[in-house]
Amino acid sequence: MRILLTNDDGIYAKGIEVLYTALSREHDVTVVAPETEQSAVGHAITWLNPLRANLIKRNGSFFGYALTGTPADCVKIAINELLDQMPHLVVSGINLGANVGVNVIYSGTVSAATEGAVLGIPSIAVSIDSFEPADFSAAQEFIPKLVNMVGERSLPPGISLNVNIPNLPSSEVRGVRITRQGNMKCLERYDRRIDPRNHTYYWLCNSLIEEDADPDADSNVLAAGYISVTPIQHDLTSYPMIDGLKSWNL
Amino acid sequence: MRILLTNDDGIYAKGIEVLYTALSREHDVTVVAPETEQSAVGHAITWLNPLRANLIKRNGSFFGYALTGTPADCVKIAINELLDQMPHLVVSGINLGANVGVNVIYSGTVSAATEGAVLGIPSIAVSIDSFEPADFSAAQEFIPKLVNMVGERSLPPGISLNVNIPNLPSSEVRGVRITRQGNMKCLERYDRRIDPRNHTYYWLCNSLIEEDADPDADSNVLAAGYISVTPIQHDLTSYPMIDGLKSWNL
Repeated sequence: MRILLTNDDGIYAKGIEVLYTALSREHDVTVVAPETEQSAVGHAITWLNPLRANLIKRNGSFFGYALTGTPADCVKIAINELLDQMPHLVVSGINLGANVGVNVIYSGTVSAATEGAVLGIPSIAVSIDSFEPADFSAAQEFIPKLVNMVGERSLPPGISLNVNIPNLPSSEVRGVRITRQGNMKCLERYDRRIDPRNHTYYWLCNSLIEEDADPDADSNVLAAGYISVTPIQHDLTSYPMIDGLKSWNL
Repeated sequence: MRILLTNDDGIYAKGIEVLYTALSREHDVTVVAPETEQSAVGHAITWLNPLRANLIKRNGSFFGYALTGTPADCVKIAINELLDQMPHLVVSGINLGANVGVNVIYSGTVSAATEGAVLGIPSIAVSIDSFEPADFSAAQEFIPKLVNMVGERSLPPGISLNVNIPNLPSSEVRGVRITRQGNMKCLERYDRRIDPRNHTYYWLCNSLIEEDADPDADSNVLAAGYISVTPIQHDLTSYPMIDGLKSWNL
């Protein structure tokens, strides 16, 4: 298959190299990824400014386009401009840090997969539950298998897969679970600091995690040592609320 | 009520001034808005860099905090740091240009409302269907009324309202419809240009609009001259796909 590979940690990140190596054995993989880290950019696209795509070669590894944009930009410009043919699949990752619970809405990794789905291509986002993973063996084993299954079975239009991998060696992973996006969220605070010119600035910090009580939520399945696979879509409508609002007689 | 007012076109935009004037007659309105235009930033939050919030006064108008961040940042920092008390309501807009169909996922205006809902506050995003609206009378009339209704009835946790207003004087608006987020989307292309140093750069352009055939979709209701109100949420799970994926036996 022709696979478009991207991420949000940037083209020089470890995670994308792991996926490139694992997927290029069997597939024709093209990398279009952000030139620099784009964590927490959500579904941002670059609209006010132009983009540049520089073909680079990572030392001892792949050629790829380093884009001066976001993960969603990478998918858009790859499909519209840089690739000769439509890819069969978009894969985004491996992100360092899980994308589960409410955090999914801030995720550039997931947004690249969503963008692929919007453009009609089956897409997979991959994250690992650590900022310093020691071992990518579970992803190296599971993702090529999942990619082949998605290639065979495809996905319904507009649906992509959000995959989160526990920070465990493959032999210790307990299995795979299909999950829903849970309500786990970070309760954030801002660190208030003073700069050398005596002006105030603020830096976003995570302080506490509010867990989802449901054992089937993505975050809990992941914490229990399973690979979590959540089917996602981009229709934000709250259907149960439509009738409620109709009764307001606006 | 205490209302937090933000937008994605920036604190100096016309739309936020219109809302400030309309809402501050009856309510205690605090403005925390991006210092510069943040169109299409989606649900980006600023994580790698610090933020600055400068209290500014718009000529002949309001005091407000100009934030060096995104619309979602504005809501987060207002609630965590800048406001003395929790607001009763978050209002975001008025955005120039409709936020309907697939475009909703790129919208900073909508993301500010989603962020309010994540933080437990009833929230409303407001957009007008023109990049050069001649007349804000429909919004000036409808939004204060909607704000009061949301104040009285509240919204379920996690739900916010995405409001789109036709570019018509109030007297020509045909009414209000509760809608779903439709599948209207822009089919984009990139304009490829050469810079003075003879390097290629790309600029995202909208070329065609792919309409949703459903007359009840947000884009069609708006085009027919109605105010469109869509209840939205941030759970991206495709529930119908969960059982399908379980049968894959991953």
